[in-house]
Amino acid sequence: MSKEDNRNKFLKEFPDLVVELKQVLAQYGMPQEAITWYENSLNYNTPGGKLNRGLSVVDTYAILKGYKSVSELSQEEYKKVALLGWCIELLQAYFLVADDMMDKSITRRGQPCWYKVENVGDVAINDAFMLEAAIYILLKKHFRNESYYVDLLELFHDVTFQTELGQLLDLITAPEDKVDLSKFSMKKHSFIVTFKTAYYSFYLPVALAMHMAGINDERDLKQAQDVLIPLGEYFQIQDDFLDCFGTPEQIGKIGTDIQDNKCSWVINKALELATSEQRKVLDDNYGQKNKTAEEKCRKIFYDLQLQKYYEDYEEGIAQQLKEKISRIDESRGFKGDVLTAFLNKVYKRTK
Amino acid sequence: MSKEDNRNKFLKEFPDLVVELKQVLAQYGMPQEAITWYENSLNYNTPGGKLNRGLSVVDTYAILKGYKSVSELSQEEYKKVALLGWCIELLQAYFLVADDMMDKSITRRGQPCWYKVENVGDVAINDAFMLEAAIYILLKKHFRNESYYVDLLELFHDVTFQTELGQLLDLITAPEDKVDLSKFSMKKHSFIVTFKTAYYSFYLPVALAMHMAGINDERDLKQAQDVLIPLGEYFQIQDDFLDCFGTPEQIGKIGTDIQDNKCSWVINKALELATSEQRKVLDDNYGQKNKTAEEKCRKIFYDLQLQKYYEDYEEGIAQQLKEKISRIDESRGFKGDVLTAFLNKVYKRTK
Repeated sequence: MSKEDNRNKFLKEFPDLVVELKQVLAQYGMPQEAITWYENSLNYNTPGGKLNRGLSVVDTYAILKGYKSVSELSQEEYKKVALLGWCIELLQAYFLVADDMMDKSITRRGQPCWYKVENVGDVAINDAFMLEAAIYILLKKHFRNESYYVDLLELFHDVTFQTELGQLLDLITAPEDKVDLSKFSMKKHSFIVTFKTAYYSFYLPVALAMHMAGINDERDLKQAQDVLIPLGEYFQIQDDFLDCFGTPEQIGKIGTDIQDNKCSWVINKALELATSEQRKVLDDNYGQKNKTAEEKCRKIFYDLQLQKYYEDYEEGIAQQLKEKISRIDESRGFKGDVLTAFLNKVYKRTK
Repeated sequence: MSKEDNRNKFLKEFPDLVVELKQVLAQYGMPQEAITWYENSLNYNTPGGKLNRGLSVVDTYAILKGYKSVSELSQEEYKKVALLGWCIELLQAYFLVADDMMDKSITRRGQPCWYKVENVGDVAINDAFMLEAAIYILLKKHFRNESYYVDLLELFHDVTFQTELGQLLDLITAPEDKVDLSKFSMKKHSFIVTFKTAYYSFYLPVALAMHMAGINDERDLKQAQDVLIPLGEYFQIQDDFLDCFGTPEQIGKIGTDIQDNKCSWVINKALELATSEQRKVLDDNYGQKNKTAEEKCRKIFYDLQLQKYYEDYEEGIAQQLKEKISRIDESRGFKGDVLTAFLNKVYKRTK
């Protein structure tokens, strides 16, 4: 099956989940307007992204079970593993609805942010809660008789909290309206990206697939985590790099990290390398909402040859991860191929 | 032990929980500023209320175990049941931080709402998430080896979702800035108060205590729910009544439901009884932010003799609940006294 077919097959599962969730409200006797509201929120906020996280639950499961392609899964098996994938997408929807409010963003995935939609406004906070709650409704309905049900619940609880911690640290380190570069450091950057992104985007999909495949020994979960967390960090560093050094054609948008005072790898590397004159320019211009200030920062990033540092970092981390993967103990059924598939999606990505 | 002693004993447990939660962050290696932020949010938002919900977990547990007083619980037992009580208070904190933002409230419990505190702002959304997450961290740490651990998780998931549903229905039925009394009805009022208040404030404390006491047969949980949900509705109807008809001395605040366009029992009863002239006055004046309009509504409420309808309602529901309680099947260890204790706290309450 092509990538596009995989995505379409996965997308086709979502309407059934919306029907199930609406049924829960109907069973409670909720008035129709509340049911319609929830349906709109689910449909507006959950599909529509790249769905990488959700799809990778399915892909990982197929690899673990030794299938050559996703099409070898039975229909029942597919529906079940896809549901776990959609639970990550619901978790992501919950975070994004809230993050957009906290960041005062205007658009998301080419449409207005949910809280910017007419008549929604601050109700979006409660809608975010209800997107999260959908995860546990679905897990209860479809997994409560599985031996690993509690593991799924705890995994979602733990990863949700880790992501919230990363978001907190990001918000207090780099508030959009109060620039203070002395709060930044490469170590803090590492914390923020690990917690805010790596756990839910890289570790969570694999851990979910491992539980469902029955390959969920603590030691194997740790093997997965030990590769996926640094891989998630690498992914975000790459994202930070491309925001500044990628062309709009490559990344499909115009980078805004400099004006947005983001605690990105780029500024943190620059702070490590800058002379005191360059530091002064960064202090005065980073996070300022104008193109001139942005260009002054960008010039320093080029002068410091950050591309070169990035390339060195990328080669080093990719090498390290390949070695780690080559040493994976597959004796209990875990497969290094799962991790290689992730690494290949990230390595030398330009978009 | 006096009521005051009970409350103080319960309050003394909270700092230990904050220490435990801080330790989780410290183990993750979180920077100190994030740990301090979380500590401040926990302390600002969780204690400070009446703590009725948390305390009633302890009280209910003592009754179920046949203790004459809370002081008969062993220290270990007390700490454990109090922790469940604090989990409800954390759930409440999570709701209140978010509700205050959605309602644009200014103060809560005599201090600024959390999002109004300097430097907090919209970060409060993430702080609300982290208050919720604390529940599952604490349950995992203290209850994961108990046979009823999954029951506790599912109970919190279910009740959280029910409360969010009630909040949604309330927000779309009675937005503060868009008065439309045709959206109101006694049936909707009943839904809103049942979901937004009764489940987490009345059913949840008892269900938690029942699980820990090992008296958690489905039939007994249902017996509890069948009394506690209508009792919770009665409590909220009383609250609505006192907001309008209670003196400020009685209720300790000045009622604002009329100006706030609240979908309260009072307005719904008035809509049932109003002549078309009175209805017109209500349409034009309810939810308007001025004293004159408020007084016009209030006059109609008096003219319609809503006090009398309220008194009839109160006598009727109290009678019904007493009868239901008298028919409780105690053969599996459940005790009607648990429910009587709740009823006595609500019946003819004037504050």
